[in-house]
Amino acid sequence: MFIEGKNAVLQALESDRTINKIFIDKNYQTRKDDVIHLSVQKKVKIEYLPKVALDKKSKTGRHQGYIADAVDFVYCQLDDILACAKERGEKPFIIMLDGIEDPHNLGAIVRSCECGGVHGIVLSKNRSVQVNETVVRTSTGAINNMNIARVNNLKEAVDFFRENDIWVYAAEAGGESIYNKKLDGGVAVIIGSEGFGVKKSLQSYCDGVISLPLKGKVNSLNASVACGVIVFEILRQREQRSCK
Amino acid sequence: MFIEGKNAVLQALESDRTINKIFIDKNYQTRKDDVIHLSVQKKVKIEYLPKVALDKKSKTGRHQGYIADAVDFVYCQLDDILACAKERGEKPFIIMLDGIEDPHNLGAIVRSCECGGVHGIVLSKNRSVQVNETVVRTSTGAINNMNIARVNNLKEAVDFFRENDIWVYAAEAGGESIYNKKLDGGVAVIIGSEGFGVKKSLQSYCDGVISLPLKGKVNSLNASVACGVIVFEILRQREQRSCK
Repeated sequence: MFIEGKNAVLQALESDRTINKIFIDKNYQTRKDDVIHLSVQKKVKIEYLPKVALDKKSKTGRHQGYIADAVDFVYCQLDDILACAKERGEKPFIIMLDGIEDPHNLGAIVRSCECGGVHGIVLSKNRSVQVNETVVRTSTGAINNMNIARVNNLKEAVDFFRENDIWVYAAEAGGESIYNKKLDGGVAVIIGSEGFGVKKSLQSYCDGVISLPLKGKVNSLNASVACGVIVFEILRQREQRSCK
Repeated sequence: MFIEGKNAVLQALESDRTINKIFIDKNYQTRKDDVIHLSVQKKVKIEYLPKVALDKKSKTGRHQGYIADAVDFVYCQLDDILACAKERGEKPFIIMLDGIEDPHNLGAIVRSCECGGVHGIVLSKNRSVQVNETVVRTSTGAINNMNIARVNNLKEAVDFFRENDIWVYAAEAGGESIYNKKLDGGVAVIIGSEGFGVKKSLQSYCDGVISLPLKGKVNSLNASVACGVIVFEILRQREQRSCK
């Protein structure tokens, strides 16, 4: 798959991801920038091309002069997410997505999760956008540092996490406020799709429903913003920040 | 201007905005849905058109069968934002934007601000996307309930808010953690542009710099996610929620 945009390519080079080749705008050849420097250091082949050739190759239309031809994204297993938490000496912190359809939202969610210290993301194989070029680009490279698992049915993952002493909550309107809920233990939160939220049957399969108290007339946030607010509230609680 | 998408059109009808006419997919004529019901009640003229005609009219390409022809968005004055806070009996809560360029980000920011109880948003006239069809659509109608002011230079607005006993902070990396900062008084926060953050000269003009503590390797959040996290942390503090 192609990884496009300067930051995304740089993050891919810095990660352990296998890159076959990097295509760079030939006008940048004299720049000797971070991407070129790191490619040389990591012995990744560079091919300089005219901008029109990059435009033709690009799948997102927003390559900024840098495209990496990398091996396809490798999804992890649920076990790997718990192993990541253990390795960092932290209680598991997981985000599950019930049918996110917009690749820009998924990319922004991956970026927020990486910034907020989440150990892994779980997607369902059906009804959900998968990791594609737009997701990679929108994540600004965070995808290279994030465990993402795919399951046939999110209920499987709920069962698995429960067996491992992790509380699983659905994020939906009408639940308990995230500010009144103790969320500093092992926790997995399910974020619903843009149009339909978390499926009712999945909500009732969880340990509870948590909500953001909203003040306005519009009754929901953008899915990636809601995920960001929840991730950072959990991080705040985990780090036991003092109350104002 | 056109307002597109079912929720956005519905919100516009529910607000005080003047609507000249509503165009609806003629296949929906028999539905008698909320939009049709409210249009009839408010005596707004409806014209049923074939889907292809709506596609041709649409500026966002995502009309969902509903387009309202409304008067252009009316920006407010800085005074109006303070009046809104006073009317609600709350201390002023303001978001300022230093050069947001992506209309999807601006739309998501308006939506988050409306949900988070912000009294007004300030944009600079230059270097920033203005309220257009994409912003209206992405805000899912929140724009109709939000005061948005435009100024020639954000420093003018900083001066104005300071004179009115409001603390003005820039949101940037390297500042004081928002979790350690008391933000429950009158407060205005400046969110920077997607590529460049808050201008250095503007940062030093503020009362301080506040930051989200990030855990990952990627060193920033998407601008609309960062804004959402900050707005909801301020709301949490304002509502004096108990500490976990």
